Amino acid sequence: MEFLKGAPKTQRLELKDILGGAHRNETVQVAGMVHARQTVGGGLTFLKLRKRDGILQCTCAEGVDVSGVPEEAAVVVTGTLREEPRAPGGVELAAQAVEVLSRPAAPLPVPVPKARLNINLDTELGLRPVVLRHLRERSVFKVQECLGRAFREYLQGQGFTEVHTPKIVHAGAEGGSNIFRLDYFGRKAFLAQSPQFYKQTMVGVFERVFEVAPVFRAEKHSTARHLNEYTSLDFEMGFIDSFADVMAMETGFLQYAMELLRTEYAADGKRLGIAIPNVERIPCVRFDEVKGLAAEKYGYQIRDPYDLEPEEEHAIGRYAKEEWGSDFVFVTHYPSKKRPFYAMDDPADPRYTLSFDLLFRGVEVTTGGQRVHSYAEQVKKMEKRGMHPEEFESYLMIHKHGMPPHGGLGIGLERLTMQLCGLENVRCACLFPRDLSRLEP
Amino acid sequence: MEFLKGAPKTQRLELKDILGGAHRNETVQVAGMVHARQTVGGGLTFLKLRKRDGILQCTCAEGVDVSGVPEEAAVVVTGTLREEPRAPGGVELAAQAVEVLSRPAAPLPVPVPKARLNINLDTELGLRPVVLRHLRERSVFKVQECLGRAFREYLQGQGFTEVHTPKIVHAGAEGGSNIFRLDYFGRKAFLAQSPQFYKQTMVGVFERVFEVAPVFRAEKHSTARHLNEYTSLDFEMGFIDSFADVMAMETGFLQYAMELLRTEYAADGKRLGIAIPNVERIPCVRFDEVKGLAAEKYGYQIRDPYDLEPEEEHAIGRYAKEEWGSDFVFVTHYPSKKRPFYAMDDPADPRYTLSFDLLFRGVEVTTGGQRVHSYAEQVKKMEKRGMHPEEFESYLMIHKHGMPPHGGLGIGLERLTMQLCGLENVRCACLFPRDLSRLEP
Repeated sequence: MEFLKGAPKTQRLELKDILGGAHRNETVQVAGMVHARQTVGGGLTFLKLRKRDGILQCTCAEGVDVSGVPEEAAVVVTGTLREEPRAPGGVELAAQAVEVLSRPAAPLPVPVPKARLNINLDTELGLRPVVLRHLRERSVFKVQECLGRAFREYLQGQGFTEVHTPKIVHAGAEGGSNIFRLDYFGRKAFLAQSPQFYKQTMVGVFERVFEVAPVFRAEKHSTARHLNEYTSLDFEMGFIDSFADVMAMETGFLQYAMELLRTEYAADGKRLGIAIPNVERIPCVRFDEVKGLAAEKYGYQIRDPYDLEPEEEHAIGRYAKEEWGSDFVFVTHYPSKKRPFYAMDDPADPRYTLSFDLLFRGVEVTTGGQRVHSYAEQVKKMEKRGMHPEEFESYLMIHKHGMPPHGGLGIGLERLTMQLCGLENVRCACLFPRDLSRLEP
Repeated sequence: MEFLKGAPKTQRLELKDILGGAHRNETVQVAGMVHARQTVGGGLTFLKLRKRDGILQCTCAEGVDVSGVPEEAAVVVTGTLREEPRAPGGVELAAQAVEVLSRPAAPLPVPVPKARLNINLDTELGLRPVVLRHLRERSVFKVQECLGRAFREYLQGQGFTEVHTPKIVHAGAEGGSNIFRLDYFGRKAFLAQSPQFYKQTMVGVFERVFEVAPVFRAEKHSTARHLNEYTSLDFEMGFIDSFADVMAMETGFLQYAMELLRTEYAADGKRLGIAIPNVERIPCVRFDEVKGLAAEKYGYQIRDPYDLEPEEEHAIGRYAKEEWGSDFVFVTHYPSKKRPFYAMDDPADPRYTLSFDLLFRGVEVTTGGQRVHSYAEQVKKMEKRGMHPEEFESYLMIHKHGMPPHGGLGIGLERLTMQLCGLENVRCACLFPRDLSRLEP
């Protein structure tokens, strides 16, 4: 028997220990993966070590044995740290010895060390486990981490409680046919399309809640902006005065996220060439109004007055940028017939709802709004739609036994990442995407 | 069009604005749910407001109309804050007016305002959406939030990157029959039993990664410690010297978590009567050794030398407490035949693995260990088990193209919560549990 007392100790340095200027001209040890290997004149070999937070250049002079050190070997380099303006971070490690911890069995099938991969999307997704080692790919998922972290940190500061709700469910929250079915010990069950019922339930408990978790949509169309499984950033808040409170909270989150990106994730933003959007103020405009404004400005006919097609979202995004100087725009008061049964109708005109979408550079990244909180009103709305309230007994329990006025939203993390990083396909903003044809890796 | 500029502004106070002693003898507004209502002599009515972070007592004298204010109404109370040592938090609101925002359609089916619910588990789980409004229930899930938050915050500080990996998969990581199947556009797919393959893959990318996400186990037995869907706290780290590094990292997490519980979640810990375990040092002992020690001390026969039954885990937990003064104990070197194909065998004795479980008060809450990183070794181990390496091509891609020595673990969040809060059934540590018979709420 022995005792464990806390985080493992190591002599090896990380980049954060080095980049501040410490340990210069000292003999140190650094571990990492050989990201790139290049032999130049005079028997000199450069090894670029891939560390968790960047790259460290190691120079191996003729006397240092690097004969058995291929790219993607795991190594520990012992050497002297010295200033080198031409190296990443302005520092390099003059190696005295390279110890190999493990070697690959075969070279990489794609040029991971290069600045650009230049392979087609299908190939890239098939080779995802190793393609992700590319520095640009890594940066996309650091930006994604930044967004998820900002969501939690910001909401926690606003008094929200984190919840974990079930993904195997007995009924779909969003209705429609895009729901995966599974056999649950001989009973029919579904995969959750959203945590909607549960997050509303938890408003009755904690008033303000959020969840970051996968949702599942059996969408049968293959587009550049749909995934069959994605990560949803959901929150729901009680005691709202209007659904504008929900939009204001999302604006606060975006401000927090962009600041975090600007500070702690600056290197990743720079590598991807991200233009950080100004979110100091986000325009907010009615659905029917902005449809008209965009159609008029860009000279097209509105085909469906009750829906927004992708092309129209794109035009509205362009309009918001040109007229209001904003990459984001809240589009409010969606038609009632296009919103689920739990959306609250506008008392001033029940053909529309107290709901919104947020468009980011012309793509919808959020859907939200105020929910019905009155039991009588919710039952009536369900019956009007031909639904059977008795099938939703455990959900309606919250309305029956008292709920504050409340609302919330769901943000597609991959879509937000895609738009922020300027990616052309949402699959590129998902580590291991699931689509009509793709179940692995 | 108008602009949104950030988090919604409100005049209403939260408990955190009040408890420091501010706003005394001022007229303020506070919103909340009527948690309890009690009329005493002299026309005086007490309303206990349930706020997101506690309870505020409101006294309504005879002149204040509370005739239409039942329990579980959502209200805004206008009144004067004054010191009152007998009230929760030492402050009460002397109401001048009570505005009702919404009313329940029916009274609660369970005595939520009482100190103890005293209903059986089946009834409780069926009425979960409203039972969770009970203050003790709320505290269980605040403790759960504390654990999840500690996991992320601690690991982030240790250089880990958060990842989101798919839950719909083409192959199970843990093998066996306890896997849910679903139809994926006409193809056979499964629900992930763990993020094992993906988190190992991401070690090749970010060196250190973690994920907090649901996992699914089609266990056909109904026990007090099994759920069919639970939240797994997973991490995986590269460049380990031994699997002791993984245990040391978990020890660090537990230290961080207990400190967070002691500070920011003190009120919830107190309400539940939690005895915070000492995690300064955690004993670590071999599987075969501790089996013998416990059997000898408590005078029982070892039935299976290759496995730990729940009763034996209980005895080992007791042994660790009595002999080493610890609520936790790492049990190491589990037999190879009881561990999955990716576990690394002990070179000193390949009948055992470089792996561990963590027991907490006699219940397993973590499984972890070092993984095979060599391609040749992994393929050989799979073949020896009669597996077909060609079916795992995308997983083996990481071994083929280079992986550092690495290891990791998975912690069952609900089990950890259960043991910490002293609950008798893991279902009580899950908001909406899924078991053999329960698919809703």
